[in-house]
Amino acid sequence: MDVFEAVKTMLAVRSYKKDPIPSEIISRIVEAGRLTASAMNRQHWDFVVIQDRQTLQRLGKLASTGGYIAGAPLTIAVAVPDSFLGHIDGARAAQDMMLVAWQAGVGSNWVGKVNTPEIKELLYIPEDRIVLTVIPFGYPADEIGRGVKDRKPLSEVAHAERYGTSYQS
Amino acid sequence: MDVFEAVKTMLAVRSYKKDPIPSEIISRIVEAGRLTASAMNRQHWDFVVIQDRQTLQRLGKLASTGGYIAGAPLTIAVAVPDSFLGHIDGARAAQDMMLVAWQAGVGSNWVGKVNTPEIKELLYIPEDRIVLTVIPFGYPADEIGRGVKDRKPLSEVAHAERYGTSYQS
Repeated sequence: MDVFEAVKTMLAVRSYKKDPIPSEIISRIVEAGRLTASAMNRQHWDFVVIQDRQTLQRLGKLASTGGYIAGAPLTIAVAVPDSFLGHIDGARAAQDMMLVAWQAGVGSNWVGKVNTPEIKELLYIPEDRIVLTVIPFGYPADEIGRGVKDRKPLSEVAHAERYGTSYQS
Repeated sequence: MDVFEAVKTMLAVRSYKKDPIPSEIISRIVEAGRLTASAMNRQHWDFVVIQDRQTLQRLGKLASTGGYIAGAPLTIAVAVPDSFLGHIDGARAAQDMMLVAWQAGVGSNWVGKVNTPEIKELLYIPEDRIVLTVIPFGYPADEIGRGVKDRKPLSEVAHAERYGTSYQS
């Protein structure tokens, strides 16, 4: 699958088959995070690779918007410094991991609102880091829709030369 | 080029050939940004597509770390709300655009520190938005290196089950 196809088709997947993800695919997902570019190449990120059923279930309970983590075979938590660049670089790494997973047929979803004391404690995240996101991964349980994505039209988000002049593709 | 290959090989490119980028490739890059997932599908982003030589030169002067923008055939500015989610979603869209460009042989680089009054004025960015990044795009002027990326080893950034226990791939 080429990159544009992956970007174009990637959907949020919140329901997963029980099938485990082969370790070589997990490695490739984590490797994608590691290889991401960051501001001044600081690589201020940590990836916690979670496959333990109990931890996943606990995480599903603790993540207010991510109960479905409990049913995922894999979740990766991304921890970064609580700074503008930390947030941005972590987001870029997360995006790379999700796209690389998608290419291998593995769905995922960005779960936010996870920087809680309970989650930090569960994952041993150091004081000086925040949990930017936890991302459950798994093979989609349901047929993946092929509908058009619900997005604003290009004319609304893309501008030519300056803000306010619609970009025409 | 598959997604992992793109993530693995993408390098910061700061020197560009004069060749213009075909409009269908530009459209695909912008489309990649538009199609990116965002928190609650808010799509709080604007992409300013800049090809005007004068604007590019002015931007190169105004971006303290991005003088090379002046020599790029294309630059896309990403404007978002100045919020945690704004920063993250904008970063995810930027990453998608850079990867899709790379697949087409087009190099780019994330230029930060660009949310200045002068740049906002030049691009007509509304008061309630920040310029998250401006990303120059172009065909690489120099042979692209095939060396190993300068990254921390996996054992340093990836943890198994909890922070502090090295993940072994």
